[in-house]
Amino acid sequence: MAEKKVGNQTVVFKNPPVVLAGYTVVGPKEGAGPLKDTFDLVLKDTYNGEKSWEKAEMKMLETSMRGAANKVNIPLECIDYSLAGDLLNQLVCSNFASRQIGLPFIGLYGACSTMALSIALGAMLIDGGFATKVLCSASSHHNTAERQYRLPTEQGNQRPLYAQWTVTGAGSLVLSDAGNGPKVTTATIGRIVDFGETDANNMGAAMAPAVADTIINHFNDLNRPSDYYDLVVTGDLGTVGLQLVSDIIRKSNLNIKNLNDCGVMIYKPEQDTHAGGSGCGCSAVVLGGYILNQMFKGELKRVLLIGSGCLHSPTTALQGETLPSIGHAISLEYI
Amino acid sequence: MAEKKVGNQTVVFKNPPVVLAGYTVVGPKEGAGPLKDTFDLVLKDTYNGEKSWEKAEMKMLETSMRGAANKVNIPLECIDYSLAGDLLNQLVCSNFASRQIGLPFIGLYGACSTMALSIALGAMLIDGGFATKVLCSASSHHNTAERQYRLPTEQGNQRPLYAQWTVTGAGSLVLSDAGNGPKVTTATIGRIVDFGETDANNMGAAMAPAVADTIINHFNDLNRPSDYYDLVVTGDLGTVGLQLVSDIIRKSNLNIKNLNDCGVMIYKPEQDTHAGGSGCGCSAVVLGGYILNQMFKGELKRVLLIGSGCLHSPTTALQGETLPSIGHAISLEYI
Repeated sequence: MAEKKVGNQTVVFKNPPVVLAGYTVVGPKEGAGPLKDTFDLVLKDTYNGEKSWEKAEMKMLETSMRGAANKVNIPLECIDYSLAGDLLNQLVCSNFASRQIGLPFIGLYGACSTMALSIALGAMLIDGGFATKVLCSASSHHNTAERQYRLPTEQGNQRPLYAQWTVTGAGSLVLSDAGNGPKVTTATIGRIVDFGETDANNMGAAMAPAVADTIINHFNDLNRPSDYYDLVVTGDLGTVGLQLVSDIIRKSNLNIKNLNDCGVMIYKPEQDTHAGGSGCGCSAVVLGGYILNQMFKGELKRVLLIGSGCLHSPTTALQGETLPSIGHAISLEYI
Repeated sequence: MAEKKVGNQTVVFKNPPVVLAGYTVVGPKEGAGPLKDTFDLVLKDTYNGEKSWEKAEMKMLETSMRGAANKVNIPLECIDYSLAGDLLNQLVCSNFASRQIGLPFIGLYGACSTMALSIALGAMLIDGGFATKVLCSASSHHNTAERQYRLPTEQGNQRPLYAQWTVTGAGSLVLSDAGNGPKVTTATIGRIVDFGETDANNMGAAMAPAVADTIINHFNDLNRPSDYYDLVVTGDLGTVGLQLVSDIIRKSNLNIKNLNDCGVMIYKPEQDTHAGGSGCGCSAVVLGGYILNQMFKGELKRVLLIGSGCLHSPTTALQGETLPSIGHAISLEYI
């Protein structure tokens, strides 16, 4: 039986599920960034052979789902559940990709925290005995997200320097009750935290308090030293949010030296994305690409990923509401 | 350890979680229907003292969450997770209600199947040892949903006779690892099924094949006789979808006599809703109200609820896509 103390937010898995493989698909901009060699497929353009950006994103997500299962030669019918989410209204990319693969489907919405949420729940389903294999996925697309949340990209509006760039990318992981690979050892499901930020371009500032809350609770719940992990990686705060989280946790006497952010890692400064990457796909492809590669090579042994989601809605923003945010954490370890 | 055979969709809980209580809030129209005496709170108007329908729905959902916990005197801080979803983009009602109650939050999207999905996952989290108490919730609001998915209600457009009426309602259930009440004994997570329906007013026809798929798999997986349940209730197909499901399952040699639908049950024919109710809130309040009441009274001992979700998106509809659908089932039993 898994362990979770009442009042704690963190679950410790009894039989930690194994990450057998990840598969990542990214757009051309991400494929020109510093992590380009860690992705499985780099698209030549943002249309991915389709007539709309939404259809392009659906196909990317389906490709990543099939790719992850194929990489370890697991037929789709041997996978118990697909857990997936994306940024689009009604999770259309996850729905349509899941229709194509035909698995029992659990739709999740956690904005950019979705990949961590799907892994946390997927691991619970396996450790709880409800599944032997699950597929955990998330996607985003720069052009589908921008036109839904802000303005059509064709308009070419100027973005503030603290804005982040929604990543075009899809990532899927196969989790299993047995096999070789890093294990999902713990999960910390986040609470919604809202410090009153209202600028939908300043996602990093909106998300930082929620992410810091989850990090602090994770370390407190487990009583782990602040240098326990080789890498503590938020996904995706960008440069502004990462600096804020860093400040908040230092004040809580957590001295985490190896703190980084998927949104900061995915682009080069000269790619002109301003504060870095964002979107469900950002942490999905950095985790499924760079981080998993480093773990399989033995370069990283203990990683804490905190998926960060700004639960921004254009409708409630127009009604004067603020930007509630959330952070979900999972730890991956070679044990 | 829970039992789930590979290839089967149905999980049988080892220590079936208990439904301690439900709390339901509905709008005036639902409060004038045949189930009016089974709801905890009937609003006087659709604004619920707020300035927008979205804010009204958020408040309804928060009221149902707090109401369910209060009914059994459980402080919110003793609840491990809140699992919730609604029909609005970015799940704004669930997000904002969850911000107010401050619990670790898992956001789910399954369109109108959300209540069944949240109970299925909530039961897995408890039976798996990751929680002792969870809150499972869903909401919808006629005016917020209609303006997002179809047309503003102020326009007074004529609706076809096969259209359903989105229910204004919010329901929450407290699930626990111990206590008195009906138990969640099994869960069948659905697959996405799409027979090519494109008329967004004809949700019943779109959802029927997905719901029938889940019902047939549920009975096959467990090898249960077709008269096993006192009530097999779909939520919410309306009259058109219910007839179609009934036809499909009869052809599969499943002779279920006591088949009904939350959308058919919630309104009187003279309330002029056409094909009946729909929306996440529909099955949430019929389950949390009428069905739970009947179970607590001993009038119903075994119930199968199949939440039905039409994963309709106005964006993909404009791009020529069809209406994929899903059905998730849970069984409640006094054992």
